[in-house]
Amino acid sequence: MSIETIATDNDALVLSEEEIFAAHEGGKLTISSTVPLNDKRDLSIAYTPGVAQVSRAIHANPELARTHTWAERLVVVVSDGTAVLGLGNIGPSASLPVMEGKSALFKSFGDLDSIPLVLNTTNVDEIIETLVRLRPSFGAVNLEDISAPRCFELEERLIEALDCPVMHDDQHGTAVVVLAALTNAAKVTQRELAGLKVVVSGAGAAGIAIAEILLAVGIKDVILLDSKGVVNADRADLVADPGSVKARMAQRTNPRGISGGPGEGLTGADVFVGVSSSKLDEEHLKLMNDQSIVFALSNPDPEVLPEVAQKYAAVVATGRSDFPNQINNVLAFPGIFRGALDAKARRITPAMKIAAANAIAELAAEDLSADYIVPSPLDARVAPAVTAAVAAAVTE
Amino acid sequence: MSIETIATDNDALVLSEEEIFAAHEGGKLTISSTVPLNDKRDLSIAYTPGVAQVSRAIHANPELARTHTWAERLVVVVSDGTAVLGLGNIGPSASLPVMEGKSALFKSFGDLDSIPLVLNTTNVDEIIETLVRLRPSFGAVNLEDISAPRCFELEERLIEALDCPVMHDDQHGTAVVVLAALTNAAKVTQRELAGLKVVVSGAGAAGIAIAEILLAVGIKDVILLDSKGVVNADRADLVADPGSVKARMAQRTNPRGISGGPGEGLTGADVFVGVSSSKLDEEHLKLMNDQSIVFALSNPDPEVLPEVAQKYAAVVATGRSDFPNQINNVLAFPGIFRGALDAKARRITPAMKIAAANAIAELAAEDLSADYIVPSPLDARVAPAVTAAVAAAVTE
Repeated sequence: MSIETIATDNDALVLSEEEIFAAHEGGKLTISSTVPLNDKRDLSIAYTPGVAQVSRAIHANPELARTHTWAERLVVVVSDGTAVLGLGNIGPSASLPVMEGKSALFKSFGDLDSIPLVLNTTNVDEIIETLVRLRPSFGAVNLEDISAPRCFELEERLIEALDCPVMHDDQHGTAVVVLAALTNAAKVTQRELAGLKVVVSGAGAAGIAIAEILLAVGIKDVILLDSKGVVNADRADLVADPGSVKARMAQRTNPRGISGGPGEGLTGADVFVGVSSSKLDEEHLKLMNDQSIVFALSNPDPEVLPEVAQKYAAVVATGRSDFPNQINNVLAFPGIFRGALDAKARRITPAMKIAAANAIAELAAEDLSADYIVPSPLDARVAPAVTAAVAAAVTE
Repeated sequence: MSIETIATDNDALVLSEEEIFAAHEGGKLTISSTVPLNDKRDLSIAYTPGVAQVSRAIHANPELARTHTWAERLVVVVSDGTAVLGLGNIGPSASLPVMEGKSALFKSFGDLDSIPLVLNTTNVDEIIETLVRLRPSFGAVNLEDISAPRCFELEERLIEALDCPVMHDDQHGTAVVVLAALTNAAKVTQRELAGLKVVVSGAGAAGIAIAEILLAVGIKDVILLDSKGVVNADRADLVADPGSVKARMAQRTNPRGISGGPGEGLTGADVFVGVSSSKLDEEHLKLMNDQSIVFALSNPDPEVLPEVAQKYAAVVATGRSDFPNQINNVLAFPGIFRGALDAKARRITPAMKIAAANAIAELAAEDLSADYIVPSPLDARVAPAVTAAVAAAVTE
C-alpha cells in the first residue's frame, strides 16, 4: 500500500505517538454475531439443533454456502510482511496493524467483512498451498505488501489456483486510480488519453501494473524507468534474464527504443508517474512537453514537491492528503472487491479494473479542474459507483 | 461438539425451517473496526501514516504484537468437517455454519474474538503445516468436529508445533463439564469422587478425554466401552494395534481386567457416562450399584431416556436442555480459552482443565440437588468463574 498514505507530517493534523498507540491497543478489529444469543431459543436457532439443518442443506447443495455462510462475502487480506509501507521486510506480525487497517477500510468503504491472514512463510508455493487449503473459509483474496518480483508470480498463480477473486492491491488498486486520474488529466489538458507519452518511474509492483493498464486502454508510448534507467529490451541485465517481468515488459513498452537515464526517458514526455522513491530533478521536468502531467506518488516524500512541479506541469497529483489530487488506493479496492463479489465474479479482469477507473474518473468529471481530477478518498459516492461499474463489467 | 445441543425436538421451542434459514442468511459473523474511520484524522491514526509507527515498534519489539494487534486475543475455530454434529463427514463448507456459531459463542460467553478456518484437507500433516504458517494471525486454536482417531494425533502434534493454547473442544470441553457434573453428583450421593467405579461408553474423542480427566483426578476404576465391548488390554483388535490410542488407554483403564460387553462392564458400576449413540438397556441399568449416576449425553437421543434411568439411578444428566442437568461444552470452552489467553499461557494443561471443572462445579454447589449438578449454559456467572480459575492454574 505504498501510495495509500492518507495524511502526512505536512498535514494540519498533528498526531501524537500516544494517541496512535492508544488507538491500536488490543488491535483494530472485532467480531460480532449477527444473530442474538441471549436465550435457549436464540441458541437453538443459531447453534444446535438448528444449525444442523443449514449444514445438512449445504452438504446437499454446496451453492447454499454462498448465501448461508459469511465466507462468500469475506475478503482475506493476505501478507507475508515483505514490503510493508516504506518499512520493507518487517515480517508478518509487524505487518498486522496495516492489514487490520486494510480490513477495517474494506468494512467502512465497501461494507465487506474482512480479516487479515499474515503468513510465516515467504515461499510462493507455500503461500498458494495455504490459501488453497483454506479456500472454503473465504470469498476473495486481497494480496498486500508482498515484495516484487514475487508478487507477480504469486498473484498470477493464485488466480489460477483459486476459483474466486484475487487481487494484489499494491499493483492494481494503484493502477486503477492512476488511470482514473490520468483520464481526467488528459481531459483537463484537452488531449486524447491514447496519444499521451507516459514515463512510469519505478518498475516494481505498482509500476508494472500501471504500465499494464495504460497499455490495456490503448496508450502506445509507455516507458518504464528503474534504478538502472530506461527499461529497454537491449539492456544487458534484461537480456540476461529474459523470463523476468521487466524483460517481458521491455518487449511491450518503449516503442521508440529509447535508452539512457531519466533525462532521455522524459525528453518529449507528456506524463510522469512516480511510484519509486527516486527523485525527479527540476532539470528533467524542463525536458517534458508543454502542458505536462506529473503524478509524484511516493509517500511520504513525493518524487518532486508540487510547488516545484507546478512551475512546469499543467496537472500535478500526489499520494498525500495535504495537496490537491490525492491518488489513493482506497478509491478503488473496496468497490472492486464488492463489485466482483456482488456479481459472483470468478476473476477480477482487466475490463473490471478499467470500469473501476472510469467510474472514479466520472465522479470528478462534473467539477473537473487541474486541482480536482479525482474524488476525495472520503467521498461516499465512490465505493457504490465503483461497485456498480465493476459488477456490470463482469462477464465470467 | 457432539454434546453441545442446546435444545431439541422435545423442547417447548418449536423452530421453523424458515426462521432457521433466515437467521443464517449471509452468515452469522461480522467484522467491525474498533476505531473510527470517518475523517482524515481517523484514517491517519488507524491507517497511514500512523500505523507505520505501530508496525515499526512491533518489528523492534515483537512482544508488542500481543498488545497492539487483535491476533493474540483471537481464537481460530479450525475444522476439516469430518465429524460435524451427528452428521459425520460433511466437509468444510457444510461445517462452516457450526464453526460460525462456535465463534459467536466465544464472543458472547468469553468476550473473545474468534473466526472459523475450515480446511479443504483432512491430512494431519497439512493441517498442522497450515496453522504453523498462519501462526502470527491468531492467539489460540480451538479444534472442532475432527474425526477420531485423527483428532488425537492432530491435537498432540499441534500443541508441540504452536507456542499458543490449542484445544480440541469435542475432547476436553466435554471432559471438563463431565468432571464438574460428576464431582457434584458424587456429593449429592455422598461418595468420594476417587472411589467411584465409572464406565464410559464411547471411545472416540469425548470418551477418551473423559477417561483421561477422570484418571487425572484420581479415579482408579474407569472402564471404556466401545462397539466391540469392554476395552481390555487382551482384546485381539487392540493387541493387533498396540500403538493406537485405545490400546494405550487399555493399559491405563479397566484395573479389574473385565472383559465382555456392556453387561459385564456395568455390573457393580457406580457411574455410566454415555458419549456414543449406543443405547443403554434397562436390564444393564439394573446391574449397576445402588445410588448410581447416569450421564446419557448422546444428542439428540440419549443412550437412555431420563424417565427410564431415574427408576434406578440417583442422579441423571443429559446433553439436552429439556431435561435437568444439561451437560454442555459451552460451560467450559469460553472460560478455558479466555483464562489461558488472559494469563498468556503457552498450553492448556490438565491442571487448567481440572480447575475449570472445579469452578463449574462450585457454581452449582450452593443449590446442589440431584436435579441441579451443573449451572445452566446461560448462567452468566460461569465464564468469568472459569476464566479466573483457569488463569490462576497457569504455571507455564
